[in-house]
Amino acid sequence: MTDATAIKPHERLAAALSDDMEAVGTLIRTRMASEHAPRIPEVTAHLVEAGGKRVRPLLTLAAARLCGYDGGDHIKLAATVEFIHTATLLHDDVVDESAQRRGRPTANLLWDNQSSVLVGDYLFARSFQLMVECGSLRILDILAGAAATIAEGEVLQLTAARNLATTEETYIKVVRGKTAALFEAACKVGGVVADASEDHVAALAEFGDALGVSFQIVDDWLDYGGAGEGIGKNLGDDFREGKLTLPVIRAVARGDAEERAFWKAALEQGKADDLDRARAILARHGTLEETRLEALAWRDRAKAALMRLPESELRGMLADLADYVVARAN
Amino acid sequence: MTDATAIKPHERLAAALSDDMEAVGTLIRTRMASEHAPRIPEVTAHLVEAGGKRVRPLLTLAAARLCGYDGGDHIKLAATVEFIHTATLLHDDVVDESAQRRGRPTANLLWDNQSSVLVGDYLFARSFQLMVECGSLRILDILAGAAATIAEGEVLQLTAARNLATTEETYIKVVRGKTAALFEAACKVGGVVADASEDHVAALAEFGDALGVSFQIVDDWLDYGGAGEGIGKNLGDDFREGKLTLPVIRAVARGDAEERAFWKAALEQGKADDLDRARAILARHGTLEETRLEALAWRDRAKAALMRLPESELRGMLADLADYVVARAN
Repeated sequence: MTDATAIKPHERLAAALSDDMEAVGTLIRTRMASEHAPRIPEVTAHLVEAGGKRVRPLLTLAAARLCGYDGGDHIKLAATVEFIHTATLLHDDVVDESAQRRGRPTANLLWDNQSSVLVGDYLFARSFQLMVECGSLRILDILAGAAATIAEGEVLQLTAARNLATTEETYIKVVRGKTAALFEAACKVGGVVADASEDHVAALAEFGDALGVSFQIVDDWLDYGGAGEGIGKNLGDDFREGKLTLPVIRAVARGDAEERAFWKAALEQGKADDLDRARAILARHGTLEETRLEALAWRDRAKAALMRLPESELRGMLADLADYVVARAN
Repeated sequence: MTDATAIKPHERLAAALSDDMEAVGTLIRTRMASEHAPRIPEVTAHLVEAGGKRVRPLLTLAAARLCGYDGGDHIKLAATVEFIHTATLLHDDVVDESAQRRGRPTANLLWDNQSSVLVGDYLFARSFQLMVECGSLRILDILAGAAATIAEGEVLQLTAARNLATTEETYIKVVRGKTAALFEAACKVGGVVADASEDHVAALAEFGDALGVSFQIVDDWLDYGGAGEGIGKNLGDDFREGKLTLPVIRAVARGDAEERAFWKAALEQGKADDLDRARAILARHGTLEETRLEALAWRDRAKAALMRLPESELRGMLADLADYVVARAN
């Protein structure tokens, strides 16, 4: 399953949904245009065409098709979801003062923070226009709610950073906001647009939520446990940014006075110059391995939710995607 | 009419609509709360309670009442409009690196840019949730379109800054984006929620657009022609930020080689250390006075649009508001 030469599940999904994905790509290019402000498509294209995996629009398309949808609005919803995601990436890179995203310099570095903030706002507004075109108040409600949860999670992450008192409860809220809320909404609107049964809509929402949580937990694992290459982020980024992620929260709770002093200096006071020691402490308390097991548990929940949906080839690919997401932590 | 002791038109509007405005205030406080992230209401309250004139929600309420509305959704729409406005202020202050807003330190200074970006995103998402509750796809379309126009105008302003080649056409697009689009939408949704005739809805939209344009042109006049006190902005801000506003665009077009060199150094190269000379050049070419006359012409358009609406006390107050907006340039 983790054979590097195998076709990855999201690639198989993209192949199975290639006509839809092409239509999404065309729609994105059309709607990111701006008659008046050429800076907008420049900045957007930099990010949109950087070769992201487009997992979120794939989820919307797969969910809609899985529920038997044969209309055209799922294309608009998939583009909506990708626009919301792109807008949050632009704003995140400003907030995190990031220099790299998807292996390329960030927009805030290539242009400026101003462009990233304003182009993000533009994409967010465009995403709402696309949703409105679908004419479903329920879908608008789901995506507006997701947007609020995302922003709330990001603010919570900001205020929880550099604070050793951060709890696991807060951590999960941040994870839900920064990642799972949009995964959940992406899946759910696919079911709603297909007029699926309430049980199927709920199953899709649970799948998206659990997939998103496991995805983010693995991301946080990778920051300490990964090899640092080909994962699109640098080993130790969270450490240097003072983010309290699951392996650290548990290690802090179990640490002795000396370790607590180490974490305090590194995370609260920004003296994060000894990643090796951080990794050694996590290993001693076994919290990296526990974090991996947490991700697996969320993966299992995601797959269990899928089982409530009609059996199909797409459902199998979504299950494989859930496996793939956690297989990155190996 | 410009007697400083007289009750101002927006104050009379607020008094006439005091029950509605109180309900809007309560709704804003309720919806800016965040269970998880206390930073959100802190930042929002700093701005929302700083004593802005709340012109935009007043426009929505007045438009709805003027068209005979007696339901409750205009309260939600007025709060929506104020949330969108507050979100754009938070982002603007990051973009402009402002230190003062409404006579107080800006949120980006009191907290940080990160909080301003993310809390702005949150308010924007909350505004969409409020709109969705009103259940009108047409209203959602109007406000989503306004949000896109605002962001587009801001990006255009960013790319037009420090560029002497900026045209009047670009200037008007920026003005529409940064100010008139939300004034227009605020008025228009008031008519739509009241189920007003298409002619009345169009008249409200025209009124809002023209009022917004005249408001912004006067703002740009004040930056060079004002006394610099009690106007909520510092004389010469636009000059130092290299913004190409109407009086400057016309003066640049008519300037000789020496003047062009002055503008180039000041606006394009950031050597904006001689505001007095800038003011003298504008005076010599008469462009400040022309700018004031432009604002008056837009004021006249705003009042003409109002005449297409049913006569009422509220209509008279809106006409007075249009007069008041331009009377600031005296």
